[in-house]
Amino acid sequence: MDSKAEGSAPCSSPVYVHNPHLDALKEDILYHFSLGTETHSLQDMFGDVKFVCVGGSPWRMKAFTEYIAAELGMEDPKSEYPNICAGTDRYAMYKVGPVLSVSHGMGIPSIAIMLHELIKLLYHAKCTDVTIIRIGTSGGVGLEPGTVVVTKQSVDPTFQPRFEQVILGKTVVRNTDLDQSLAEDLLQCSKELNQFKTVVGNTMCTLDFYEGQARLDGAFCSYTEEDKQDYLNKAQEAGVCNIEMESSVFAAMCKLSGLRAAVVCVTLLDRLKGDQLRSSHEVLHSYQQRPQILVGYYIKKQLNAKAKDS
Amino acid sequence: MDSKAEGSAPCSSPVYVHNPHLDALKEDILYHFSLGTETHSLQDMFGDVKFVCVGGSPWRMKAFTEYIAAELGMEDPKSEYPNICAGTDRYAMYKVGPVLSVSHGMGIPSIAIMLHELIKLLYHAKCTDVTIIRIGTSGGVGLEPGTVVVTKQSVDPTFQPRFEQVILGKTVVRNTDLDQSLAEDLLQCSKELNQFKTVVGNTMCTLDFYEGQARLDGAFCSYTEEDKQDYLNKAQEAGVCNIEMESSVFAAMCKLSGLRAAVVCVTLLDRLKGDQLRSSHEVLHSYQQRPQILVGYYIKKQLNAKAKDS
Repeated sequence: MDSKAEGSAPCSSPVYVHNPHLDALKEDILYHFSLGTETHSLQDMFGDVKFVCVGGSPWRMKAFTEYIAAELGMEDPKSEYPNICAGTDRYAMYKVGPVLSVSHGMGIPSIAIMLHELIKLLYHAKCTDVTIIRIGTSGGVGLEPGTVVVTKQSVDPTFQPRFEQVILGKTVVRNTDLDQSLAEDLLQCSKELNQFKTVVGNTMCTLDFYEGQARLDGAFCSYTEEDKQDYLNKAQEAGVCNIEMESSVFAAMCKLSGLRAAVVCVTLLDRLKGDQLRSSHEVLHSYQQRPQILVGYYIKKQLNAKAKDS
Repeated sequence: MDSKAEGSAPCSSPVYVHNPHLDALKEDILYHFSLGTETHSLQDMFGDVKFVCVGGSPWRMKAFTEYIAAELGMEDPKSEYPNICAGTDRYAMYKVGPVLSVSHGMGIPSIAIMLHELIKLLYHAKCTDVTIIRIGTSGGVGLEPGTVVVTKQSVDPTFQPRFEQVILGKTVVRNTDLDQSLAEDLLQCSKELNQFKTVVGNTMCTLDFYEGQARLDGAFCSYTEEDKQDYLNKAQEAGVCNIEMESSVFAAMCKLSGLRAAVVCVTLLDRLKGDQLRSSHEVLHSYQQRPQILVGYYIKKQLNAKAKDS
């Protein structure tokens, strides 16, 4: 079942679902958002969304909403941005004009639940030409802390660009390519901003923060410092610039649904030099703002270009 | 490195870490809890913990804290239970007497990060004889909604009792057995309570809520209703009573660290009859209280028995 994109411009690109069963549902309950097609008018609420920014932390996504509102001159004079998912504590969601901001928690399963319901939300709302960007944090591999990485390909812990989805007990392999032109646009924006270093490179996505990322400081560790360095050096040779825990399923699901997608993560430390986050709260906080600043600049530029065209 | 359990009773059981590198750390920062060995006196804060209850939702874990405080006659007259992890939005943590309550988000990666840091916390605090129980929600397989399932074994999507941990790009298989005597004790408590049905059975743990659990209502679905029923019937034949997303890594990590562990999840629906949660908010809320009531009763009984002994 593909969106008919009714009433949209001829060359606009819809958000696809691939599920023939959805048509048979009288009501579609987006349980983890506390939203539904019978209880909410999704098209009225979300029909104008053109940019979706997602990140692990609900606090960060609220801060991004306040930041983008100021950047776009759309501040609420009372600075009140209600959480659209206030009926649940699973995810937080905010909206300012065409920009939707959603938290996704930590790890592949948590972001996957959110993306299933987000893709259905955008589909029910008949949104078109949507760009989605994950703004997150990561561990860097051989990069100065604070460097921003725009992901070229998301790779698994064996450095292969693939995501394994288990369906009915069987493994299906999905592609993890991201939109290369969007990545280039974001790199160009960073050059124009000239505030911090940004690189395009591969991102390794793991199911675990400690043993899965070769950290020496978890509750369990069966390998040596040398084993760790060997593994991270091999990752670097395979083009891995940073390590996080959501990019693979994000890339796979966005590609399947026709969303133009990018992953923009700041590196909080260089994993070749350590495992624990020892920078001050202030330094870490300023690093975490960098993906927000870059993506905010990109969105503003896009909206200004569109305003000029029309 | 094993705990020396200094100053504890001769036959007490410590919390183990298996990581020779931890000794070399001057400071251990439990980043996702916003706690650390240099900034907090973990032994003073947590040394008396005997029961840890964990669950996905921060709201539910706060509600459990209020409930257990009332059950144990330890209510704060102002009903204020501060979030010990207030410096972060990744997890929430509350403590009443010997009972610690911690949220873990959704999915294996999210609970694994929490467990690494929780096990290190209990180790640094020199806790002994700790029982840990996950109180959660799940989809039932052939059970009346509202039935509580105490997990015997956590099985993977091919119904095997194992958890695959990727370490340095290689897969290590871990055991997912839970404490059988604790499961029997909890079943006995349910009989004494006589408020709702409780069963002991296998729990299937998946990496995804939609395609991974054979739901027909995700953004993507490539199988038929018949394929779904076949798969869930096979799960039922393999002894699967319910499906959730955290039990396997919980069982594996608790076993490795010497924690007496149980998984107690209520079933919110019968997956053989549907996919969406259509019960009213009130009914779902009352179901979600059942694991809390059962575990609250168990803890109270244990503490009363201990008080009688001493």
